[in-house]
Amino acid sequence: MPRILPAQPGMSLADVDTPALILDLDAFENNLQKLRESIAGRKIMLRPHAKSHKCPQIALRQIALGAVGVCCQKVSEAEAMVEGGVPDVLIANEVVGKTKLRRLAALATQAKITVCADDAGNVKDIDAAAREFGVVIDVLVEVNVGANRCGVDPGEPALKIAQAIAACKNLRYAGLQAYQGGAQHLRKVEERRAAIDAAIGSVEKTLALIEKAGLPRGKVTGAGTGTYLFEATSQVYDELQVGSYIFMDADYAKNDWTESGIPRFEHSLFVWTTVMSRTRPDIALVDAGLKASSIDSGMPRVADFPQAEFQKASDEHGVIKMNGSHGFALGDKIRLIPGHCDPTVNLYDHYVCVRSGKVEALWPIAARGAVW
Amino acid sequence: MPRILPAQPGMSLADVDTPALILDLDAFENNLQKLRESIAGRKIMLRPHAKSHKCPQIALRQIALGAVGVCCQKVSEAEAMVEGGVPDVLIANEVVGKTKLRRLAALATQAKITVCADDAGNVKDIDAAAREFGVVIDVLVEVNVGANRCGVDPGEPALKIAQAIAACKNLRYAGLQAYQGGAQHLRKVEERRAAIDAAIGSVEKTLALIEKAGLPRGKVTGAGTGTYLFEATSQVYDELQVGSYIFMDADYAKNDWTESGIPRFEHSLFVWTTVMSRTRPDIALVDAGLKASSIDSGMPRVADFPQAEFQKASDEHGVIKMNGSHGFALGDKIRLIPGHCDPTVNLYDHYVCVRSGKVEALWPIAARGAVW
Repeated sequence: MPRILPAQPGMSLADVDTPALILDLDAFENNLQKLRESIAGRKIMLRPHAKSHKCPQIALRQIALGAVGVCCQKVSEAEAMVEGGVPDVLIANEVVGKTKLRRLAALATQAKITVCADDAGNVKDIDAAAREFGVVIDVLVEVNVGANRCGVDPGEPALKIAQAIAACKNLRYAGLQAYQGGAQHLRKVEERRAAIDAAIGSVEKTLALIEKAGLPRGKVTGAGTGTYLFEATSQVYDELQVGSYIFMDADYAKNDWTESGIPRFEHSLFVWTTVMSRTRPDIALVDAGLKASSIDSGMPRVADFPQAEFQKASDEHGVIKMNGSHGFALGDKIRLIPGHCDPTVNLYDHYVCVRSGKVEALWPIAARGAVW
Repeated sequence: MPRILPAQPGMSLADVDTPALILDLDAFENNLQKLRESIAGRKIMLRPHAKSHKCPQIALRQIALGAVGVCCQKVSEAEAMVEGGVPDVLIANEVVGKTKLRRLAALATQAKITVCADDAGNVKDIDAAAREFGVVIDVLVEVNVGANRCGVDPGEPALKIAQAIAACKNLRYAGLQAYQGGAQHLRKVEERRAAIDAAIGSVEKTLALIEKAGLPRGKVTGAGTGTYLFEATSQVYDELQVGSYIFMDADYAKNDWTESGIPRFEHSLFVWTTVMSRTRPDIALVDAGLKASSIDSGMPRVADFPQAEFQKASDEHGVIKMNGSHGFALGDKIRLIPGHCDPTVNLYDHYVCVRSGKVEALWPIAARGAVW
């Protein structure tokens, strides 16, 4: 459905209508470089998570800077990436059900596709779909390394799934998916390091069994923005699945980074919003509520007025306590730092890409809403 | 961007891919009828809020059953409604900034448009835009009747805005926007009734001043699903802005309805999800997380297994504690009742409309993402 868009290339940021999702290109490009430099010279592959950005334009820039491909969480997300020109996608998640598996196998005729499994019956279903489409699909065993979400336990249970994969004609056992999602937002560096040390132990135990059973080692893939240097220096992980480093949301900014070795990534993603009601003293209503900035990991932060506090979001309104700040006259536009970047991105159709106060491009969020 | 959709008309519900947003047409149509019957014979107009459904197909069904038009919160939402054939739209919100006001005035050349104001400078800006497009726009004064969001205080401050509107050549003073949003989810009937009684008092005080000042009375519009019968029987409100009654989310279901006179609306909106991992006892992972069902007003409920508990949502996963329930084998599909319908609808491109276990239609959510 064509719509009047909030921005056009060439427009000044001040003229961009609100709410809009702003990508500060300088900060974004700095983040790409900072990550690259932080792992330079290490024997580690980079496979950024596209669930954060859902945008082939960003994926292709990551690949141009050395990434081997991207991760996705959903088949529909992977379809959007392949359609956008990404040649290598890991679905870092289980794919269950015949309809989805046929789409997965069809996609594997177009690009290099890898998927995870944690169930022997599901492994057979993936094999059947691969056979139907005449492809060989790489499958990783997802190991529960502490996040307690999907994945089999380390050790014997993981070995059994690996053997089930290796026994299938149209599958290739490709290694271990070992993402410790529960570690990424632990605030203290030592907590995050301890969680990853435990994950590394689980992986080593599993690898030993797998090698003993005569299976190829495969790769070990995982890690997120909060911990990736620990995995990168582990000698055990081969591939990093960092996502949020390109944007840096308010929740990640609450982590302690000192002595983690991880660079301070910059906030590059903002919700551009207008002050739309000023009838009460020290309170400004803005036109960005929870349909404009996800609040699952806390309220957005007001970017340029540190004493102002975004207190409350309803569907289409945000309540800001100004705490004496200026810059909140009716009609003023301000930048919010989203509490959580991934679900915020998923609310928009475009990044409004800005450099030096001017709109440089609109990048479609091609996998927006791609949940199935 | 064309995508492989999760459903096609004629398909059985069991074959619909997940996650998908399911609309149970029987329950939905029952809700439309129940609301109609509950206000039958009363001198009250119905103007349902389209921010809940964002779908012209639903708006036109509401109008066919007697609604005078719909409400929207955003200009882009109103554009989608007018494009979809809705002839009368109230933007029950302030519209600030020249770009938006020009779009508003342009829309008023296509349909009957009403807007709210709570600031004298903004009133002049609306007038200027209306003049540019050669239209006369109806403007309501938004009065803060207890929600403490937008709106001027009742009494003199409201009168001043009404007079500012009346003084403008291209505006018509049309009455009061008096929505008590803070009352809708108060759990006890007497709490909701007391909040609406206070709102009615504020409206009466303001109306007295407005009539004394020689302005036309105009209409009084407001109310939501939690309280609408109190406004309907107030002799003061003229128009109801109910939204959620068509869907009934898990949060509204927690309200006490006994002796409110408000009918028990049925759950008609569901997130269809697949059990995608079953590696831990009594825990089922489903493929619907917070990008599939909004969690701002609490977790979704598991529809058909009352003892099962949706405990936690990450971006793309939901953790269900089964508490001994059956029906959670790998690959099983289940229905979730969203915690909050409005932001959940805003995540999807289509309603998958189902009757007697079969997909009858896909209705586009035309105003999905229309936040500006």
